[in-house]
Amino acid sequence: TEVKKIAVIGGDGIGPEVVAEAIKVMKKTEELFGYRFEFEHGLFGGIAIDEKGTPLPQETLDLCQGADAVLLGAVGGPKWDNNPKELRPETGLLGIRKALGLFSNIRPANVFDCLKDASTLKPEVLEGTDLIVVRELTGGIYFGEKFRREGAQGEEAVDTCVYNVTEVERIVRQAFDIAMTRSKKLASVDKANVLETSRLWREVVNRIAPEYPEVELEHVLVDNCAMQLLRRPSSFDVIVTENMFGDILSDEAAMLTGSIGMLSSASLGEGAFGLYEPVHGSAPDIAGQGISNPIATILSVALMYRLTFGYHDAANAIELAVKEVLDAGHRTGDIAVDKSTAIGTVAMGDLIVNAI
Amino acid sequence: TEVKKIAVIGGDGIGPEVVAEAIKVMKKTEELFGYRFEFEHGLFGGIAIDEKGTPLPQETLDLCQGADAVLLGAVGGPKWDNNPKELRPETGLLGIRKALGLFSNIRPANVFDCLKDASTLKPEVLEGTDLIVVRELTGGIYFGEKFRREGAQGEEAVDTCVYNVTEVERIVRQAFDIAMTRSKKLASVDKANVLETSRLWREVVNRIAPEYPEVELEHVLVDNCAMQLLRRPSSFDVIVTENMFGDILSDEAAMLTGSIGMLSSASLGEGAFGLYEPVHGSAPDIAGQGISNPIATILSVALMYRLTFGYHDAANAIELAVKEVLDAGHRTGDIAVDKSTAIGTVAMGDLIVNAI
Ligand SMILES: CC(C)[C@H](C(=O)O)[C@@H](O)C(=O)O
Ligand SMILES: CC(C)[C@H](C(=O)O)[C@@H](O)C(=O)O
Repeated sequence: TEVKKIAVIGGDGIGPEVVAEAIKVMKKTEELFGYRFEFEHGLFGGIAIDEKGTPLPQETLDLCQGADAVLLGAVGGPKWDNNPKELRPETGLLGIRKALGLFSNIRPANVFDCLKDASTLKPEVLEGTDLIVVRELTGGIYFGEKFRREGAQGEEAVDTCVYNVTEVERIVRQAFDIAMTRSKKLASVDKANVLETSRLWREVVNRIAPEYPEVELEHVLVDNCAMQLLRRPSSFDVIVTENMFGDILSDEAAMLTGSIGMLSSASLGEGAFGLYEPVHGSAPDIAGQGISNPIATILSVALMYRLTFGYHDAANAIELAVKEVLDAGHRTGDIAVDKSTAIGTVAMGDLIVNAI
Repeated sequence: TEVKKIAVIGGDGIGPEVVAEAIKVMKKTEELFGYRFEFEHGLFGGIAIDEKGTPLPQETLDLCQGADAVLLGAVGGPKWDNNPKELRPETGLLGIRKALGLFSNIRPANVFDCLKDASTLKPEVLEGTDLIVVRELTGGIYFGEKFRREGAQGEEAVDTCVYNVTEVERIVRQAFDIAMTRSKKLASVDKANVLETSRLWREVVNRIAPEYPEVELEHVLVDNCAMQLLRRPSSFDVIVTENMFGDILSDEAAMLTGSIGMLSSASLGEGAFGLYEPVHGSAPDIAGQGISNPIATILSVALMYRLTFGYHDAANAIELAVKEVLDAGHRTGDIAVDKSTAIGTVAMGDLIVNAI
């Protein structure tokens, strides 16, 4: 079998711990399914600031560009929060997305059976919630020109939100494609009653829609979407939206499932290449204690197998193993009802490896 | 007593029905407390488009500018949704905010006892939730330059988000002032890790904070805020944020209380003048049937009495009357558990008038 190169970026906080468990899982699937991976580690985020003076060192970028997929833990922490812009972990994150052309962020938000009660939403409202947010990731107000200037009223700050037709087309097509593999429902979220970029967005969506006659399309204004996610979460299937709205809504969606510690995400570009990471952050408060939950990162591997490599057999095996371990009652502290019975990061990783 | 001029704008859908009940309530307080109002009606929104060819006719603007306060029902409906920009109700709304200098939108989101179970959130999570979103209303990406242009990748759309120091200062001061009258907790929401306008925002907040040493201030990133509103709604008191974020978060906050049909809002400028309206929309699907809930609009009158006129006695009387009527079990269809016992808009208005 062809050897696949994996760029491994542990990052900050609990990142390295959870990534270590995900790699154990990948190694087990090498044995069982005959796949072959080559892992190479890179510095990124806060640790790269500390050791290399920049959140995204050139060698890390080279490593990612030479790899078939990237496995990322998490970046950031209070230590770097007050740094100037160039020396902040987030700047590295934006930089890597742009440099690798990862224009699409895919975040499944579903409810895990064992966490049904962890949500702050009523179980009957949550019932059946299983949605995907497809967020545009390399355009919009994140990447438009930003500056300060002297205005008539004193100093002013400016951010520019720009979208071109091509950028909107590719993300919208991808969302329609994903909708076709699911229940064929797509909600496109914008603020077309106020923003010019949203009007362009909506025009493009409406122009592409006839190519997917089977997909039921709705346009939802972003403020209304923030409400409807609360009111009828299970009625959504695929949600597609621009960068800033996607940042807000994907976090809202993840939180309402109650399963945020278990959710994985993929950032994709034109080809099969992708960057995979858990939705949760670097959790500096519990870093180094060996108590973090590796499941979201392990499930990110399953997502990588499906979306980048087409290794559906191994992806299924991972997802089944996670389910089996949870069904058997094993829990890390974050998801344990009785905290005294909680197991650690490595123990959870071992159980899943053995269950595969 | 001085006669106060009230510009009355029923607007579209259920707007005129609910405003009519609010005026009945105001008349009752004239009798009981000796206050004097002069009501003058203006066309605005969809109805103004139909009758005058513009959502915000000059005479309506003149009327508002000559008034002491504006009472607004709701605007918009599917009939005008596909109109060009100049002929859309929303354009009137943005125009009136700007023309009247209403830079601050204040939206209390609290839970009504009788609606405790109407929220999709678990009652124990919601317990004690009583927050106010203070949204900047005349700046940011809503009012910055917007245009299309030909770029290297084809047509592109641009929106510009601009904030100057003065704009941020006045809204932030107001939020601190409001926090001082409540539990002295302020959450300032921004996206300072990405946006230049947010970095300016945060600088201004930090510069003003020492003037309010008693207020406990936290900075929350907008994506995190969308999550925390779900996870710990009752821990928020006053939230202050820029226009676009405020649009999204105030709707999320309103919906999570389960009381959206009962929530009122105020839009304020420099002086005592204000525009008062219910948070809910024009509900075209139930317009004209006499079944809409007038309580949010009636409570908007109480807000007007407090914030513009300082008529606290009458404001208290209105709020108490609403509580009494609800405690006695009277419900409009939207909040009735047993729909067959629901009463209509006018009946609800009458009950509240009699209870004052
Ligand atoms: C850290 C920040 C720049 C980033 C974003 O806003 O994109 C994060 O919130 C995310 O969603 O990945
Ligand atoms: C109708 C629309 C322009 C408006 C806004 O976005 O401000 C509305 O959503 C609101 O919150 O009052």
